[in-house]
Amino acid sequence: MITLYDLAFEEDRRPSPFCWRAKFSLAHKGLDYTDVPMGFTEKEKIAFADSRTVPVIKDGEKPVKDSWAIAVYLDDMYPEKLLLKSEMGRSYARFINGWADTVINAALFPLIVGDLYDRVRPEDKPYFAESRGARLGTKDFTAFQERAREKGLATLRTALEPARRALREQKFLSGAEAAYPDYILAGSFMWPRTISPLELLDADDPVHAWRERMLDLFDGMARKAKTA
Amino acid sequence: MITLYDLAFEEDRRPSPFCWRAKFSLAHKGLDYTDVPMGFTEKEKIAFADSRTVPVIKDGEKPVKDSWAIAVYLDDMYPEKLLLKSEMGRSYARFINGWADTVINAALFPLIVGDLYDRVRPEDKPYFAESRGARLGTKDFTAFQERAREKGLATLRTALEPARRALREQKFLSGAEAAYPDYILAGSFMWPRTISPLELLDADDPVHAWRERMLDLFDGMARKAKTA
Repeated sequence: MITLYDLAFEEDRRPSPFCWRAKFSLAHKGLDYTDVPMGFTEKEKIAFADSRTVPVIKDGEKPVKDSWAIAVYLDDMYPEKLLLKSEMGRSYARFINGWADTVINAALFPLIVGDLYDRVRPEDKPYFAESRGARLGTKDFTAFQERAREKGLATLRTALEPARRALREQKFLSGAEAAYPDYILAGSFMWPRTISPLELLDADDPVHAWRERMLDLFDGMARKAKTA
Repeated sequence: MITLYDLAFEEDRRPSPFCWRAKFSLAHKGLDYTDVPMGFTEKEKIAFADSRTVPVIKDGEKPVKDSWAIAVYLDDMYPEKLLLKSEMGRSYARFINGWADTVINAALFPLIVGDLYDRVRPEDKPYFAESRGARLGTKDFTAFQERAREKGLATLRTALEPARRALREQKFLSGAEAAYPDYILAGSFMWPRTISPLELLDADDPVHAWRERMLDLFDGMARKAKTA
């Protein structure tokens, strides 16, 4: 039996892009799991895994922390539907992981930081304000977000160009069917979707059509998640 | 018998990043070929392939234009050492193709446009000045390059971060051995190497060590190419 520790905001919203990588991975394998929501400051819930961040899973007695380690672990233990598929697939996923973290999530964060703050659980607001305030040099997240959106939306859309080119040629980043590279980028899009009303993509963008397909997977798992 | 049409600058320098993709691909397969250097304005040499840009190959009587089409063609016809390996490999290569074209080559071009112009064949200089001048809004390529280098080198190094993260974990972008994703990025680095003295990478950058490995492949094929 698998337990997943998932970051929760107010009204049980689940924005963490890293936790979504794990949720898509578990769904890809068809594995059931018990969901444990936790706030930013409930670090004691995942102390057993020697982790301070989610996602963390517990498979029987085995703790696994970090989204990448979870994907690798699941492929090792449940090899029937591989997430990474091959050495090339693992290399591709590694590249997309770095790209999503350093380019896409970095472009998204300033656009939604005010919306994130508004929907953080009340007891987690001081933690969020301190940690994100230090990173941005301000705690006025609404004003910061407002300014960032002037140019930041165009920056994000430009940054998506490599994905857009691939998605003009094929249904998913991984080919005819979705696999871990798709789950990484889909996780990035679940981050704004669950906490912000901001629309990021033009309706005729191939990335938009792909995002719809990702929302449809696994009986609409991601589409059913609470949105802003 | 295969013939490759390769863009040539003064003193037989060969900077085209797209032609390097084809040269690495042919070397990966262990295929011999006849090299036909051509300048920007010798379009008549490749008219038989209905192309206005290189690389173009002619395999027996069969013309193939465009670096991506050449990689796909070579894998179809000579499947022994695959460049793309699998559906995930082809998807990965497609993504890296888009990333190299829209991010890496776009970041490199302003840094080396003056050096490129200086080393274009005299008879091709008017063509280069017209086409690149229209793109940049100036024909003073030396001054443009000078200004671009102030911030552009840092931009390039930041843009390489997804590759850097992958190369901290594995020898090549494709895993333990090089394949088409590596040849795409290596082609991008051959562009400055052959025409500019500018050093782009810190010596302790994992991308630097990878570039050295790429220069060593196939008996130092790329290392032997004439540099600036």
